[in-house]
Amino acid sequence: MSITYIPGGVCAARGFKANGIRCGIKASSNKRDLALIVSDTRCAAAAVYTANLVKSAPIKVTRAHLADGHAQAVICNSGNANTCNANGIEIAEGMSALVEKHLGIAASDVIVGSTGVIGQPMTLTPMENGMESLVSGLGDHSDFAEDAIMTTDTVPKEAAVEFAIGGVRCRLGGIAKGSGMIHPNMATMLVWVTTDCAITPEMLQKAVSEDVKTSFNMVSVDGDTSTNDTFAVLANGLAGNKTIETEGEDFDAFCAALHAVTVKLCRMIAKDGEGATKLVTCLLTGAADEKTAKTVAKSVICSSLTKAAMFGADANWGRVLCAIGYSGAAVDVERVDVSFRSKAGQVDVCKDGAGIPFSEEEAKKVLLEDEIHILVNLNAGDASAEAWGCDLTYDYVKINGDYRT
Amino acid sequence: MSITYIPGGVCAARGFKANGIRCGIKASSNKRDLALIVSDTRCAAAAVYTANLVKSAPIKVTRAHLADGHAQAVICNSGNANTCNANGIEIAEGMSALVEKHLGIAASDVIVGSTGVIGQPMTLTPMENGMESLVSGLGDHSDFAEDAIMTTDTVPKEAAVEFAIGGVRCRLGGIAKGSGMIHPNMATMLVWVTTDCAITPEMLQKAVSEDVKTSFNMVSVDGDTSTNDTFAVLANGLAGNKTIETEGEDFDAFCAALHAVTVKLCRMIAKDGEGATKLVTCLLTGAADEKTAKTVAKSVICSSLTKAAMFGADANWGRVLCAIGYSGAAVDVERVDVSFRSKAGQVDVCKDGAGIPFSEEEAKKVLLEDEIHILVNLNAGDASAEAWGCDLTYDYVKINGDYRT
Repeated sequence: MSITYIPGGVCAARGFKANGIRCGIKASSNKRDLALIVSDTRCAAAAVYTANLVKSAPIKVTRAHLADGHAQAVICNSGNANTCNANGIEIAEGMSALVEKHLGIAASDVIVGSTGVIGQPMTLTPMENGMESLVSGLGDHSDFAEDAIMTTDTVPKEAAVEFAIGGVRCRLGGIAKGSGMIHPNMATMLVWVTTDCAITPEMLQKAVSEDVKTSFNMVSVDGDTSTNDTFAVLANGLAGNKTIETEGEDFDAFCAALHAVTVKLCRMIAKDGEGATKLVTCLLTGAADEKTAKTVAKSVICSSLTKAAMFGADANWGRVLCAIGYSGAAVDVERVDVSFRSKAGQVDVCKDGAGIPFSEEEAKKVLLEDEIHILVNLNAGDASAEAWGCDLTYDYVKINGDYRT
Repeated sequence: MSITYIPGGVCAARGFKANGIRCGIKASSNKRDLALIVSDTRCAAAAVYTANLVKSAPIKVTRAHLADGHAQAVICNSGNANTCNANGIEIAEGMSALVEKHLGIAASDVIVGSTGVIGQPMTLTPMENGMESLVSGLGDHSDFAEDAIMTTDTVPKEAAVEFAIGGVRCRLGGIAKGSGMIHPNMATMLVWVTTDCAITPEMLQKAVSEDVKTSFNMVSVDGDTSTNDTFAVLANGLAGNKTIETEGEDFDAFCAALHAVTVKLCRMIAKDGEGATKLVTCLLTGAADEKTAKTVAKSVICSSLTKAAMFGADANWGRVLCAIGYSGAAVDVERVDVSFRSKAGQVDVCKDGAGIPFSEEEAKKVLLEDEIHILVNLNAGDASAEAWGCDLTYDYVKINGDYRT
């Protein structure tokens, strides 16, 4: 199964165009704030959403629009979450109607996303005014769309792959935003993926729902599950492969391609966590079952104390043990081994739940790198998991101490 | 039921002496690191411990010593957690033996506590050398004992009350340490309470186990549940009241006195959270049941984003709503009201799950105070809960970015 990374983001797949402009929702900045992704033809579409009981208006509207398993466009603003607003549904439906008006795509085939501050009044006016320019500029502009959905993100996040289904070359690419309020329990904040692979809505939903379990649901920046998390995939079938209608080799190939893109986006989201200086990956092995593996791996990357230690390049492995102990999973802590690894090397710090002698100097060198792996072996079975997080820094506090101003 | 706060900490109750010295466990500092609390007579004793699967050696030893419901002394060091050490049990038993050797109190009647870094080698030598000075200085020195159990704490935490059981005046007082790694799921890091009230070990355990549910289990500084959390009470009966052997008026009076002390300690622990500048209390009302009330209140004070907003005096109530939504409790988010309150006033920010107009200037004034109440009304019933936390600041990161050096 050959999967090759290619450029292009959400415009990598045939028949998809994108654009992003500044229409003025972010009143006090010059940044882009409105994105549009459009397919030439109607697509099979599937999505997963936040588990937060407080859900954005765009999620409610998108869920209704995707009930029939089809969509053709994504419209998405930053600068306002459109959540806990009195007129939220009206605004989200209004955004869909703007797409219908300017592109002739049925409003019910539009996916809507919003990100920004919760509970702020919102009007359609800036978007109405910007629509013409947004539509006229549609093209190979995945980067503009990506730029327009960013809030506290510092780097754009996109990935795309080429793969084959039954000998036919297909492409799949995505963009993501997410930096703070990241602890997805369904999907990360906003992830839009497009593909020209032909697949039924049912199989697409199956692929998406499976994928998040080992992708976005294993990322945490700060333990706060957003109200707006959405991960949606549009598949327009323009690659011309035999439509994937059942499980089997083709479906597996599609899932592998999807995972190649989503895992890359996960790592980008974690590394660009608000204020983060490091990507911290927990590689959990030797678990009795997959649930234990995931629970423990996520507990380690979520621990504030472990995250602060990573910021300080401090091999304080006791905090890793501590996070394993309170994860809620049944673990025999006296069999746990822990190591830290980066491109500077590997240092083993804990064996059978107790400290072993190690060089502090060597450990410092390993932990000063910007991509750290915390290796945990529970020595209790064959299941494994990978979770992605980041360090906890002064800047996380700074960014969130006064986000609204 | 009259309860009066009095000075004296763990020496307030008749027959209790305490002391704290520097014996040299904290090699690189001049701070006290060894504490002793002793009763003139053998006491009923009860305790609760961390829910972390990784448990300190002192907890294992204390649990065994308290199996018979009695104890007479507490010995406690700071500077080393005595957790994940190969010789942990030996050290903890050795500390008990030192008390037996110098005071003639059976080692099996000694409660042992440790706090500090996890997984560091430890020897008895400094304690052996310090024991004579520690014992000869025993007296009305609750403050020395409190000082000796502090790690990153910045202020001492003690409280005591006088109350009556069947017309007999009793006293109860405690000291606590806890600043980081605070998210007790049984008790907070280390809390030692003494009382001269006569009560059976069984009723004492019952009181302690009930008390933590609405005291230490409702505090969170950083979501990390320590491996060493212990909350123990010694009751020597020297007040001369009729021994409390059953539930009833006397037991209720004792529980109320205990709660008066523990809640005060909870607020002190939260306010002295690592790096904290504010005590943040969530007052949750209108819940359908107590479990919901507690779950939601704790979710609010645990949210990193809400904590950072409190640091920035930013009335970003959307983050409160968000934390309510992901708490896991079944809440009708469209009925939720939120207000911020401090001694500077109260500002209502959210009604029926949606934002309402408020003065940002007024809100800033309220949130600039150092004790903030977040009032949440779920409008779904009569149950309520209170949870204590603190803000998330640069200093939390600083303290934990390089704790070991």
